[in-house]
Amino acid sequence: MSAVADVGLIGLAVMGQNLILNIADHGFKVAAFNRTTSKVQHFLDNEAKGNDNVVGAFSIEEFVAKLKKPRRIILLVKAGSAVDAFIDTLLPHLDQGDIIIDGGNSHFPDSNRRAKELAAKGIRFVGSGVSGGEEGARYGPSLMPGGNEEAWPYIKEIFQSVSAKSDGEPCCDWVGPEGSGHFVKMVHNGIEYGDMQLIAEAYDIMKRIGGFTSKEIGEVFAKWNKGVLDSFLVEITRDILLFDDVDGTPLVEKILDSAGQKGTGKWTAINALDLGMPVTLIGEAVFARCLSAVKSERVKASHILSGPEIPKDAIKDKQAFVDDLEQALYASKIISYAQGFMLIREAAKEYGWKLNNPAIALMWRGGCIIRSVFLGEITKAYRVNPDLENLLFDDFFKNAINKAQSGWRKTLALSTTYGIASPAFATALAFYDGYRSARVPANLIQAQRDYFGAHTFKVLPEAASENLPEGKNIHINWTGKGGNVSASTYDA
Amino acid sequence: MSAVADVGLIGLAVMGQNLILNIADHGFKVAAFNRTTSKVQHFLDNEAKGNDNVVGAFSIEEFVAKLKKPRRIILLVKAGSAVDAFIDTLLPHLDQGDIIIDGGNSHFPDSNRRAKELAAKGIRFVGSGVSGGEEGARYGPSLMPGGNEEAWPYIKEIFQSVSAKSDGEPCCDWVGPEGSGHFVKMVHNGIEYGDMQLIAEAYDIMKRIGGFTSKEIGEVFAKWNKGVLDSFLVEITRDILLFDDVDGTPLVEKILDSAGQKGTGKWTAINALDLGMPVTLIGEAVFARCLSAVKSERVKASHILSGPEIPKDAIKDKQAFVDDLEQALYASKIISYAQGFMLIREAAKEYGWKLNNPAIALMWRGGCIIRSVFLGEITKAYRVNPDLENLLFDDFFKNAINKAQSGWRKTLALSTTYGIASPAFATALAFYDGYRSARVPANLIQAQRDYFGAHTFKVLPEAASENLPEGKNIHINWTGKGGNVSASTYDA
Repeated sequence: MSAVADVGLIGLAVMGQNLILNIADHGFKVAAFNRTTSKVQHFLDNEAKGNDNVVGAFSIEEFVAKLKKPRRIILLVKAGSAVDAFIDTLLPHLDQGDIIIDGGNSHFPDSNRRAKELAAKGIRFVGSGVSGGEEGARYGPSLMPGGNEEAWPYIKEIFQSVSAKSDGEPCCDWVGPEGSGHFVKMVHNGIEYGDMQLIAEAYDIMKRIGGFTSKEIGEVFAKWNKGVLDSFLVEITRDILLFDDVDGTPLVEKILDSAGQKGTGKWTAINALDLGMPVTLIGEAVFARCLSAVKSERVKASHILSGPEIPKDAIKDKQAFVDDLEQALYASKIISYAQGFMLIREAAKEYGWKLNNPAIALMWRGGCIIRSVFLGEITKAYRVNPDLENLLFDDFFKNAINKAQSGWRKTLALSTTYGIASPAFATALAFYDGYRSARVPANLIQAQRDYFGAHTFKVLPEAASENLPEGKNIHINWTGKGGNVSASTYDA
Repeated sequence: MSAVADVGLIGLAVMGQNLILNIADHGFKVAAFNRTTSKVQHFLDNEAKGNDNVVGAFSIEEFVAKLKKPRRIILLVKAGSAVDAFIDTLLPHLDQGDIIIDGGNSHFPDSNRRAKELAAKGIRFVGSGVSGGEEGARYGPSLMPGGNEEAWPYIKEIFQSVSAKSDGEPCCDWVGPEGSGHFVKMVHNGIEYGDMQLIAEAYDIMKRIGGFTSKEIGEVFAKWNKGVLDSFLVEITRDILLFDDVDGTPLVEKILDSAGQKGTGKWTAINALDLGMPVTLIGEAVFARCLSAVKSERVKASHILSGPEIPKDAIKDKQAFVDDLEQALYASKIISYAQGFMLIREAAKEYGWKLNNPAIALMWRGGCIIRSVFLGEITKAYRVNPDLENLLFDDFFKNAINKAQSGWRKTLALSTTYGIASPAFATALAFYDGYRSARVPANLIQAQRDYFGAHTFKVLPEAASENLPEGKNIHINWTGKGGNVSASTYDA
């Protein structure tokens, strides 16, 4: 048995099969293995039939023996204990310097741990985000590899060959150390939740305030897909809205309005809370799915709780209404991506990662669910300034959001007045207005905390004085009568 | 050495000292112990001097020997490993049936674990939320005990004697099993974050849109404190806004607008995400503190990002403006408490706890930071119907929010138009409008998920047909051309 394969892949579900065929298409020889080995035979006899670049293996020993050194092994198995179990199975058969790549939807702390454990054993670990679904795996996914950088020269050619391309550039580059590849994939998924919620709110506003039919809304998305919102999700929304059931009515209107979630959006929101970053739009998008899930309670509430009437002629100028809505969606999307990159920035700081920001934007530019023209602009912004403090400080986005804000505000005033929930639009605007405020009302919150819990506060530098010294933790006896301030400073 | 003390308390920081004095005032004999025993002597020589109901102990052996059986021991030490360390120190000296009460700010999963571990050793564990700060501990805190219910008869009299009272009823009752006492305290703190953020937004709107002075805003809060918003937090907000620095200008305006957080608000938001409950207001309140904390970035943004001008005469009718704002605050507060009780309901289901809802509202009615007249109404609602599905289904709150919604919507349209961030008001209204919607746009999200990931969807029961069977997971080939539906149903 000779080592003929450039790379091995374990896990022959649809994603794994498609990725193997994709790698083989690009001239690399792939060894295929699966725990249930009958799947290997089935794959060889069907999807991979006659494909000289695919070889099967029916035991771990055979699989490992068929790989050139250093061995490159991609795991595409269920995230969690299955990944650890396969790593444990592989280890006795591997040599120093071999490479294990986890391409599943692993939670990044697991990848942090695996990178460290395997490095201690001389094995190079890569945790790679893979996005784009079955179609992407087959014809060009977005790949976000991170971990042990020593592995990168050995996998770069394969990864960048099979990945999606945007303007000729591969949507795959090295992200950073440890679990940063899976971290970036997690944020991608969070942003995907946000984009989907924004689109859903735009649809709801057109339907319930504008009185538009599904067809009309589909045409709006078709038009939007030719402008600044040009993206995969807007494109499929157009297709969905124009898709009729056998009875000739729009299928989408027959679908139960109770959305599921697989947890990655939730992970992003929890990580944002842990790192203290205001990633509000993803948070609201996850909560909106939670609210959708309590369907029977909502139906009951709809009979009990009242709201404003929406007059038939609520919208006089339909074109202006749609144009404002486009701006609301665009501006909210800018906020969501700005928040996502704030989280990535903070994670890099907190976890001590040096991350490749322009590459992250480029990796999302093509192949994945959130791919869009918009991400080309983000790539540009980070190429001009890789250490850009905030996306909103880039001229393109600053001007875009400034131009959009009038329509954004009008749309939200409308949904507020007529009682159509738009939590993602609303939180995006609240973030924008809070972020651009040199002063927010947190001074009052600090005063309250000092009043009831002696938590102390600091003084505004420009208001510092002898009794309110700059930089010190100050406690005031707020209930002291007679108007006198009794300030004591101490480090709490 | 004889067993003279009814209860023992470990941890002589201010909270512990005050709680001892409070217990002693009610005729119970308390043994006081502290790891650094010099603090015991200092306490006996000062705060507890001449108090016959306080006895000191200078070793664990002496402390335990001074307690009547079954021993009742309150820990008021730093949450985390210190609690475990003291429990380990105590264990060898205790007898079966003795009671350990953790009164610190422990995270409820720790209390779950401790309740189980100690039950296995024959020790009865109680995790009790304690709220009200130093003042509360001394003269009547809100106490929220949960854990091993066998302990309750032995501590009930002491706990209900020292706790705050509301209309003669103690703000303390048995919450439920395991860590439910600390869970309820956590939700209390989350709601506290929400209440503070709502008040801060009202202040900011009056200041920046209404052009009100701090004094004028203080007078508004003084008036609100006599109406439906009558509460501790509104009362201290009045005091704060009317409090002048030595130069005769309002002190609050000199405080740095960067709010700290101790983590319990964050715990609540993370728990909401974990349980899939849309507790959006607490989430936004925590994120608002995060946004306040990036002060230097906000200052920079304030020079780069633009917003609408606020005309000097933006508010023509100041009284109507303030009345609308009061309704916005009231309605948002109702939503926040409804969400908090949704979380408690879900936790009870998820963790298998039988919880005492009317008692929870009554415990928050007095003694704690969120105490208010409003909580009296919530207590009433849950007394009438302990299994009330949602607070918004209670007649009082349904009518209150219905009456409030016009002012609520006007206020939000105003802040949206003039660019003053009000994330908590906004998310509350979005929740209300989503919750009372029999149909939300999650049907589109389900279609998208099925389009790109074959995640399947279910059909609305009223739209079910032969090719779209009710209750089944349906997948559609959305890109199938020619308008034909190819539906395959399978259990994903």
